[in-house]
Amino acid sequence: MIIVLKDGTTKEQLILFKAALEEQYDVTVNTWHGVGSTVLGLIGDTTAVDEDWVGAQDIVDNVKRVQEPYKKANRKFHPDNTVIELPTGQKIGDGSLCIMAGPCSVENEKQINYVAQRVKASGATFLRGGAFKPRTSPYSFQGLKSEGLDLLKGARKETGLPIVTEIMSSAHIDMFEGVDIIQVGARNMQNFELLKQLGKIDKPILLKRGLANTIEEWIMSAEYIMAGGNDKVILCERGIRTYETATRNTLDLSAVPIVKKLSHLPVIVDPSHATGKSWLVEQMSLAAVAAGADGLMIEVHNDPKHALSDGAQSLTPDQFDVVAKKAFALKKAYDGIVNS
Amino acid sequence: MIIVLKDGTTKEQLILFKAALEEQYDVTVNTWHGVGSTVLGLIGDTTAVDEDWVGAQDIVDNVKRVQEPYKKANRKFHPDNTVIELPTGQKIGDGSLCIMAGPCSVENEKQINYVAQRVKASGATFLRGGAFKPRTSPYSFQGLKSEGLDLLKGARKETGLPIVTEIMSSAHIDMFEGVDIIQVGARNMQNFELLKQLGKIDKPILLKRGLANTIEEWIMSAEYIMAGGNDKVILCERGIRTYETATRNTLDLSAVPIVKKLSHLPVIVDPSHATGKSWLVEQMSLAAVAAGADGLMIEVHNDPKHALSDGAQSLTPDQFDVVAKKAFALKKAYDGIVNS
Amino acid sequence: MIIVLKDGTTKEQLILFKAALEEQYDVTVNTWHGVGSTVLGLIGDTTAVDEDWVGAQDIVDNVKRVQEPYKKANRKFHPDNTVIELPTGQKIGDGSLCIMAGPCSVENEKQINYVAQRVKASGATFLRGGAFKPRTSPYSFQGLKSEGLDLLKGARKETGLPIVTEIMSSAHIDMFEGVDIIQVGARNMQNFELLKQLGKIDKPILLKRGLANTIEEWIMSAEYIMAGGNDKVILCERGIRTYETATRNTLDLSAVPIVKKLSHLPVIVDPSHATGKSWLVEQMSLAAVAAGADGLMIEVHNDPKHALSDGAQSLTPDQFDVVAKKAFALKKAYDGIVNS
Amino acid sequence: MIIVLKDGTTKEQLILFKAALEEQYDVTVNTWHGVGSTVLGLIGDTTAVDEDWVGAQDIVDNVKRVQEPYKKANRKFHPDNTVIELPTGQKIGDGSLCIMAGPCSVENEKQINYVAQRVKASGATFLRGGAFKPRTSPYSFQGLKSEGLDLLKGARKETGLPIVTEIMSSAHIDMFEGVDIIQVGARNMQNFELLKQLGKIDKPILLKRGLANTIEEWIMSAEYIMAGGNDKVILCERGIRTYETATRNTLDLSAVPIVKKLSHLPVIVDPSHATGKSWLVEQMSLAAVAAGADGLMIEVHNDPKHALSDGAQSLTPDQFDVVAKKAFALKKAYDGIVNS
Repeated sequence: MIIVLKDGTTKEQLILFKAALEEQYDVTVNTWHGVGSTVLGLIGDTTAVDEDWVGAQDIVDNVKRVQEPYKKANRKFHPDNTVIELPTGQKIGDGSLCIMAGPCSVENEKQINYVAQRVKASGATFLRGGAFKPRTSPYSFQGLKSEGLDLLKGARKETGLPIVTEIMSSAHIDMFEGVDIIQVGARNMQNFELLKQLGKIDKPILLKRGLANTIEEWIMSAEYIMAGGNDKVILCERGIRTYETATRNTLDLSAVPIVKKLSHLPVIVDPSHATGKSWLVEQMSLAAVAAGADGLMIEVHNDPKHALSDGAQSLTPDQFDVVAKKAFALKKAYDGIVNS
Repeated sequence: MIIVLKDGTTKEQLILFKAALEEQYDVTVNTWHGVGSTVLGLIGDTTAVDEDWVGAQDIVDNVKRVQEPYKKANRKFHPDNTVIELPTGQKIGDGSLCIMAGPCSVENEKQINYVAQRVKASGATFLRGGAFKPRTSPYSFQGLKSEGLDLLKGARKETGLPIVTEIMSSAHIDMFEGVDIIQVGARNMQNFELLKQLGKIDKPILLKRGLANTIEEWIMSAEYIMAGGNDKVILCERGIRTYETATRNTLDLSAVPIVKKLSHLPVIVDPSHATGKSWLVEQMSLAAVAAGADGLMIEVHNDPKHALSDGAQSLTPDQFDVVAKKAFALKKAYDGIVNS
Repeated sequence: MIIVLKDGTTKEQLILFKAALEEQYDVTVNTWHGVGSTVLGLIGDTTAVDEDWVGAQDIVDNVKRVQEPYKKANRKFHPDNTVIELPTGQKIGDGSLCIMAGPCSVENEKQINYVAQRVKASGATFLRGGAFKPRTSPYSFQGLKSEGLDLLKGARKETGLPIVTEIMSSAHIDMFEGVDIIQVGARNMQNFELLKQLGKIDKPILLKRGLANTIEEWIMSAEYIMAGGNDKVILCERGIRTYETATRNTLDLSAVPIVKKLSHLPVIVDPSHATGKSWLVEQMSLAAVAAGADGLMIEVHNDPKHALSDGAQSLTPDQFDVVAKKAFALKKAYDGIVNS
Repeated sequence: MIIVLKDGTTKEQLILFKAALEEQYDVTVNTWHGVGSTVLGLIGDTTAVDEDWVGAQDIVDNVKRVQEPYKKANRKFHPDNTVIELPTGQKIGDGSLCIMAGPCSVENEKQINYVAQRVKASGATFLRGGAFKPRTSPYSFQGLKSEGLDLLKGARKETGLPIVTEIMSSAHIDMFEGVDIIQVGARNMQNFELLKQLGKIDKPILLKRGLANTIEEWIMSAEYIMAGGNDKVILCERGIRTYETATRNTLDLSAVPIVKKLSHLPVIVDPSHATGKSWLVEQMSLAAVAAGADGLMIEVHNDPKHALSDGAQSLTPDQFDVVAKKAFALKKAYDGIVNS
């Protein structure tokens, strides 16, 4: 962290300020005296230093953080990719392309088992499905809740596919016992109490990017989980809110290589929620693969026209089969080209 | 809701679709047959109708909602302003200007009591202060938690000012027993499980607008609380996320008259969090008054330079005194001009 | 400008880089040597220093501009407010509230003369009206062009109101001879060739903020005009593009005090274009006054329902009369409160 | 266009309004009478119908455009892809991948000829280079102007590569005689006077998307050029302005398949300007190919560290060689997969 002091700062003020910094934080303060101006450089662990507090000091003209405010999620301190491995053997972040597929909402046993079998046959490595649904309207279908979790576990038994499903409150954590990967949705990305509780369990967490959160804030939310002791975080880009209305959100594929540079965590892409349009899913899945994503999360419904939520963005199992085949084929070609 | 059907829709498809709509939802379907095209109009309670589901139907070309998707918060059905009255007599939404003032974080007894006395002397009608603090970094100060709540309650006893403080998890509701107004922060505006729990209690809820949420989504979150049975919701505009970096957020003052047109709920403005800069608070407080706000929420700290959070946006008690005086004076002039 | 060099920068590289900076730009380079790191501080006129170029150097870890990149528009170098005075005596920026009112498009002699007389009677100090209209669609009405300018000049003769109208190309400058204030629209805010040409003439320029431009970019566009020799620039906030769809744009009233802090130029507000809704104009005009604006630009049409463009945001002359009265009354109260 | 009338509209008002619509525009008005409400449907060419004007009518509750407001650029009326073919044989939009490469600014003969030769050797099909440079600051390097154009023409003679360069004012059109493709930059996307002039010439126009323009507005700007008689428009996605600061702009790759669905015009992608970071160019070039782009525009400089503009985003010729090879290889694989 670089701190530019105002002209006219007295020697006494400088000494007091440096002492305050070194007392409050685990840092050493370097001083550069120049003609008519003084610059401080903080060395050590600046992650806990409060930029706002520093900037609010009378003698401070300007502050600039030069180090990322996260540690555990930071590639600088963990150069190797984090590979999430499930007890059942599936890996995320090992260079393969994982595909999580399934309906937005779990509706009934027949539906979820049918979709699970179909997506498995097409190469999906995880079954996704919503039991607790975050809906803008209190009058919309809110999910089958614990019954939905049971149906997912049933489909898991039927097909062997590990399941990924969203949690909406730390009060529900016990119910997620048999779930393989717990998803934190975009609207809860900064539900810090939930993140803290998820830091205490030993299960991979799929952390979706918030509606309008920066990449740094997203990694900071991963850091919350990791700071609690749970290192198994998977990031998921799902589009950000912009002025453009042609898509539900704007898919930010640049986020994939940026996250991979800043962090060692795996990152996957959800083209279904990002675009909100089923006809865009194929093309954006291919683009995500070529952007270097570790995986895809795709909505598949046996009957999108009758889906209880988000039908407009779901693929049929037949459509998904085509998308998955093309995505795997492109991934193979991509690996050959990039690693050559 | 207006639904434009595709050319070539058969009579049979039309009958089936109308039946599906009338079966699923409490609506009557009007049909307008034109030359080569058919338009359906849904009459009745369309709040529960899922626009995405309608749009995903094969025969549907286009859907447009013409009625707001909220009922209890809708001014159409409740023309009179909601006035929130506390047991201690303070009112919000009755045409007066309420001012909630206090530190971002409660730090210790001396601080909170001192600030409470000072802001009361300047005319503040509520004491605000954070006990649970949502911080982007897990390494930043997270608030004094239950100890902070106790200190707030102490300051309430000392000064008689009712207290407003933020809740971060439904698991903490019991601790908020003695709190007068419970605040839901921007990051939890769509924490629907929390909203549902707050709908079950009998206490005013101050609902801040989310980082990048639309006015409609914001009112829908109020509707969540109201749908649960708690009608006492106060909305708080606190700036939205845009590309502009000169302020922390972009204060959207147009939201004030828009909310007042769409809803009967009171709406206040927080210029401190919106701008992130203490020197902008006075000017934007005056602008908020002239935009028709029912109140202001302003950060005041005895010693902003040593505040444990958000010092850059806090006023000193002396500065606050000036702002409050000007705001009340402008409110008086405004009322004279607008009601003349 | 503060430049943090990378660890491991050699003494030779440092010397070469400092020499390159001092050779290319009119600056002196200060060097601060700290433990294991070196920071450079550029003193002098850094407005011409290319931040991108500096950041692209191999040995540079980080650059931060601490001085604004504008000079002529900068309040630091010109502490006093710029007051624009017209030959006909009207002043902008002298502490009074100027109101520019009139139709979006000039349509015919009767219309423009009628509106001019009405707005003058209500206290407007300038007549605005579009002759060249920037329209998203090539098939929409594009304005009466030179004929429209003639009609405006006629209305000016009739009423004595100075006229403000938009230019869309430097090729048209000659036609604007008899115009009092030339407006640059939001879509041309970064039409740098046009700005350069306007820098060569001696006439006030009303520079609207671009659709999605930062305050800094906006002032830089003023700097373009001023760098050419024309100091008479008036800034006009007209809303920025955000994700919110309840208003056409999001009116950024914080921009008013920020511009006034950074620059000595006057700043006015256009609530008609910002909101796109006539019913919001009154409230946001009052808020603009309380935000400290030097003036308002308001659309008034004799018959908004039949206006050839932007009818939805126009007031009738009667409605304008009410708004103007309230705005002047609030301005008077505001001045009494703020200057007390 | 669907127009919902307000309850209580009289028969007379309806007749007058229909007559006004049919008189002003080349449309037929369909009327659907329902229980208690009336809906109008406009059939015919609604591109010229002014939505704002319709919405401003007293009896209108709601308007919704169901047809795109563009004709010549609309794929509905021109199902086949537009293929731009240069006199020298190069094609854009024929299914091949075109690469336009070169420096942000032309600096001198040696530089431009060297870069031209290098990018040609790597497979680039066009030489790009800036002679007129739109710069935020009037004090930044503004390009070599006509001398720069001459240098580009020289490099064209040397290498046979057609040249692409930006125009900033319609006053300069004559100077662009020997230029193969004229570029309109993001800041001039809605400089309608320039677009009109470019509609009159017979030369391909590369139209960059504006800083914060919607896809519809972008296609409407293409329509301006086409409405003037010039059908040779190439669209170029270059990132949009959002709240995210990790990249200069947010590259919106979904725009590629959306433009291809809505329009028959070719669309290319500029990852250099979109991201502002050279290290992201390779990855986002590959993603653009997989998103279905017809081409790439990439900045290449012999010596990015000494580039007079935008050095931070330029590749060296050696780096470009790697990117081009990978992009062509991925394009080949992609074609095999998508067309199989």
